[in-house]
Amino acid sequence: MKNYKLSDNFLGYYQDLILQQVLPYQYQILNDAVPGVEKSHAIENFRIAAKEADGKFYGMVFQDSDVAKWLEAASYALALQPDAALEAQVDEIIRLVGKAQEADGYLDTFFSIKEPEHKWQNLQECHELYCMGHMIEAGVAHYESTGKTTLLSIAEKAADCICARFGKDKTRGVSGHPEIELALMRLYHATGRQAYLDTALYFINERGTEPEYLEEEAKHRGWVHFDMDPSDKEYAQTYAPVRKQEDAVGHAVRAVYLYTGMADAGRTAGDDSLLAACETLWNSITARRMYINSSIGSTGTGEAFTMDYDLPNDTNYSETCASIGLIFFAKQMLDASPLPDSRYADVIERALYNTVLAGMSLDGKNFFYVNPLEANPLYDGKCVTHKHVLSHRPSWYGCACCPPNAARLLTSVSTYLWTVKDTALYANLFAGGRLDLSEEKGITVETVTDYPLDGVIDFRVDTAANTPVSVFGIRIPDWCAMYQITVNGEPVLPEVIHGYARIPLPAGCITQIRLTCTITPQRVFANTSIREDLGCVAIMRGPLLYCIESVDHDGDLRGIFIKKDSPITELPYTRSLLNGIVPLQMEGYRIPPSDALYTYQRPAAEPVTLYAIPYYAWDNRGENEMKVWLHEME
Amino acid sequence: MKNYKLSDNFLGYYQDLILQQVLPYQYQILNDAVPGVEKSHAIENFRIAAKEADGKFYGMVFQDSDVAKWLEAASYALALQPDAALEAQVDEIIRLVGKAQEADGYLDTFFSIKEPEHKWQNLQECHELYCMGHMIEAGVAHYESTGKTTLLSIAEKAADCICARFGKDKTRGVSGHPEIELALMRLYHATGRQAYLDTALYFINERGTEPEYLEEEAKHRGWVHFDMDPSDKEYAQTYAPVRKQEDAVGHAVRAVYLYTGMADAGRTAGDDSLLAACETLWNSITARRMYINSSIGSTGTGEAFTMDYDLPNDTNYSETCASIGLIFFAKQMLDASPLPDSRYADVIERALYNTVLAGMSLDGKNFFYVNPLEANPLYDGKCVTHKHVLSHRPSWYGCACCPPNAARLLTSVSTYLWTVKDTALYANLFAGGRLDLSEEKGITVETVTDYPLDGVIDFRVDTAANTPVSVFGIRIPDWCAMYQITVNGEPVLPEVIHGYARIPLPAGCITQIRLTCTITPQRVFANTSIREDLGCVAIMRGPLLYCIESVDHDGDLRGIFIKKDSPITELPYTRSLLNGIVPLQMEGYRIPPSDALYTYQRPAAEPVTLYAIPYYAWDNRGENEMKVWLHEME
Repeated sequence: MKNYKLSDNFLGYYQDLILQQVLPYQYQILNDAVPGVEKSHAIENFRIAAKEADGKFYGMVFQDSDVAKWLEAASYALALQPDAALEAQVDEIIRLVGKAQEADGYLDTFFSIKEPEHKWQNLQECHELYCMGHMIEAGVAHYESTGKTTLLSIAEKAADCICARFGKDKTRGVSGHPEIELALMRLYHATGRQAYLDTALYFINERGTEPEYLEEEAKHRGWVHFDMDPSDKEYAQTYAPVRKQEDAVGHAVRAVYLYTGMADAGRTAGDDSLLAACETLWNSITARRMYINSSIGSTGTGEAFTMDYDLPNDTNYSETCASIGLIFFAKQMLDASPLPDSRYADVIERALYNTVLAGMSLDGKNFFYVNPLEANPLYDGKCVTHKHVLSHRPSWYGCACCPPNAARLLTSVSTYLWTVKDTALYANLFAGGRLDLSEEKGITVETVTDYPLDGVIDFRVDTAANTPVSVFGIRIPDWCAMYQITVNGEPVLPEVIHGYARIPLPAGCITQIRLTCTITPQRVFANTSIREDLGCVAIMRGPLLYCIESVDHDGDLRGIFIKKDSPITELPYTRSLLNGIVPLQMEGYRIPPSDALYTYQRPAAEPVTLYAIPYYAWDNRGENEMKVWLHEME
Repeated sequence: MKNYKLSDNFLGYYQDLILQQVLPYQYQILNDAVPGVEKSHAIENFRIAAKEADGKFYGMVFQDSDVAKWLEAASYALALQPDAALEAQVDEIIRLVGKAQEADGYLDTFFSIKEPEHKWQNLQECHELYCMGHMIEAGVAHYESTGKTTLLSIAEKAADCICARFGKDKTRGVSGHPEIELALMRLYHATGRQAYLDTALYFINERGTEPEYLEEEAKHRGWVHFDMDPSDKEYAQTYAPVRKQEDAVGHAVRAVYLYTGMADAGRTAGDDSLLAACETLWNSITARRMYINSSIGSTGTGEAFTMDYDLPNDTNYSETCASIGLIFFAKQMLDASPLPDSRYADVIERALYNTVLAGMSLDGKNFFYVNPLEANPLYDGKCVTHKHVLSHRPSWYGCACCPPNAARLLTSVSTYLWTVKDTALYANLFAGGRLDLSEEKGITVETVTDYPLDGVIDFRVDTAANTPVSVFGIRIPDWCAMYQITVNGEPVLPEVIHGYARIPLPAGCITQIRLTCTITPQRVFANTSIREDLGCVAIMRGPLLYCIESVDHDGDLRGIFIKKDSPITELPYTRSLLNGIVPLQMEGYRIPPSDALYTYQRPAAEPVTLYAIPYYAWDNRGENEMKVWLHEME
């Protein structure tokens, strides 16, 4: 993070929004200082556990994780720009967390305050390893962002407590919500301590082995919290040992958190069988179980994956957090590949621009947890099959998982932009700013671009005489059929390997590299195994998925069709519209609803003009209908 | 019933199937004489309650109703054709039922055997009024079919027990599952006893009044059976007084059973406000909440109605029993209208041919409870959203509601064919056979037709000199745009009122009337408010809905389109195919699934020939994919 200074027109806006709007608001929420919003009590729980306040635990069993995610995001924010007030808030919370931590490193205010007798007994439902995992992530982030070890020490104490308890020849355990695996891996990378890698591998390898831990635990513990069904072994990915798992199943966030830890541990430990399992699960998601916006989770029941090609557009879950987790997983897969493979970065890009950003209103005040691809206020939140879907972002929940998750992703987005591997530097995503690896690798890169609104990306690469970097790799996005690359103004035809154009880089000079992607609106066609998209097309422009809203169509999307193969016109970039977008105009038809439910006469279709906006910007002009997949008519 | 002798090529087959196959099999089931099938124990429960056997109650709380429905269907069977063996079976069961009835008329083996202390305490969940209602219906049917009063007396004793308990100034009560209302009305019509009408009206008028009975009951009873939510007031249509109910909601079978009782009571009592409520609810169903096959219940959750125009094709419930109940309701609405209105008979016809018949395999051995309009063995019964849907009829359930319901409807189908009103006789449905009203009205009608395979219906009407009938009404089906009527071979242009052509009928002679409906395959278009049918058409031929099955399409319906506006060809009637059908052939396309989940290139469509069969006959050639609504492509 410290090597990259983002100054991007597009993503910069969201970083600023997180810094100026989301993090301060979230801090207020965590401190119960926002009237009219459901009480969080998350900081107060730490205060009570720290014996600095009296009271009872309040909130979900995983309430602590809200604080951890905020600390992580705030740490990244401090890396982006100094902020003494924020730093003081962070330090004060870290002090409280430290005081709430028990002598042996145990850290979970729900159990410390409310259920001290029940510690470690209900890993299926009670999220101790999940909450401590998030605090470990926060500790690593805080250390890497600020150099301070206050939270890292707390994280290490918590991790030591976990490593002392769980493992071969120790107590058996598997977390009902994966997170500890990826967290211990991050802590291992930050500290180099073998116990963290070993315990991460233990949790990964133990999962799904017979007798299945969570089911055994449920038999013996004699108490329940949520009354989850321990025999549902898909929900928490315990249906088989991880290397035998061939389908991405169960709770989508749990799944991708697990796979993230698996990929990191597989790469770090050089465990090819683990990486092969990750590749299988990656393909299960991206080739058969993923929406066009790289969102995942086809059903609200269990917020879960369902089956191959089952991708309903209006009853999906597509949780913002699940796409964030998919980005984590993709990043690990990118890092684990001998040469970077653009299919991982393509998913990162699509999930980031089209789901993570869609999860937040343009003013940073309202958030979707569920991201439907077809929304209708008549049914969403009302019809029994659509109860979990909303067609308007709510402000904030007492239990806030997605907003702080989006905050930590967007403040650390620069870590996804570049990959350094051997003698090559790879540009995965395109965002304006300055990469400074002059100390480590003798190279700096200035990127100037209006991506994703425009397809021109300029890199000014400055190499030292002794740089070991001899190849500059640029991802050619999967959406881009036509592109041109110039080096110092001269067109070149570089070799493209695994989706990355490889440009030889001379040492000791400045090289101007330009990638020009032809960025025009395109129709996207779904595999006909996806029943719900049959006869439909979606529209993308560059990496941005588009949608239509009823506010642009007389308040009614019923009976709307796009004219088959008709041109899609780019309207001029409009700064004042939805924070600056390129609207699209298309020819279409409307068959207005009639009085009859069914008719024997073909109802007449009227020509209409359709207007599409980027999907990430929907529901910013009042609650209304929205559709991504448009039926075609000739 | 005794006035009509059916000799119809089409419906006759199903009546024979019920008589020769379904009723005997069902008798075996009720007597636990079929190995390998989940035990029914229904007769044994009566034996135990009659103190002729020892043992415990077994089965659902409404297990008695299976016996009642069988008795009702068997009674109709005896009216259709004498059968000494069947009559002996019926008499023996009636003897048992009589012996199981308590001294005060109370009749419910679950409570008599198992929960005598809890009688009448849990009307929400425990179905006493529902089970007794079905036995009352059986008593009326048995009396009307055989002239015997054995079961009618039991029914009257049960009804007297109910009337003595419930009513104004008596104990308050409303049944969680409507049925008693319509049953008391039938008993009133059979006996003329005012108490039955009064109590039916009491139950109808009490429903949904404040404080809502079922919720009150749940507060005070202190025990539960199914643990249903008493605050869900839509489920059992208790959300408002019935005259204030504007939408058909909740459990679909419950709804239409209630509306049936309301319409009968409204007509009988001359209560216009009740009939107006029925009309509102009828429109709610048929104008906004009904599938093209006149099935109802858009969701498996609560087997229920959802919201206007919410009609998903692959996750619907569309219970066979609900369409049977809709037929009951339609018949009452038809009878309640001053002049018959064909829109009621249109729904009866469509539900009968396309849902009730679809509920049964062609050999009468397997039954659908749920009737999807799109089936896929990959997902049905497996995917969490499709658990309730099956793409293959199962043999029989221990709790058997739909098969005996279909049996009683099909054995009594002749009661839906004709309406006599004032000086007119109306043909509602078209089936071969002989109507003999010579004693009552001085008229007989011989009908000869191959309907619904053919559109020619011949009526030979024989009137006595003193017949009061001076008008012969024939329904012009809603699907029929072109028709011709001849009287004694001469074309006529009769007045059509409310969908019935009215032909003046001379007395004292024979009149030959022929209706010729032009019966060709037609495309049907859904209202564009139905999101799931957008861009699709369905195919009907006459009253028969068609579908395509994967067995006719290389085992795969993925990516199948019908060519827009292309001709639909009738293939020759094939006796050996699916018990005799007219297959349809159509031009279409297939876009085969590709390896990629999404592509930027339009995938190629290949021309294919499509074959459609009547929907009622699907899933008779092995489990496979099926679709009613077909996407169009030009």
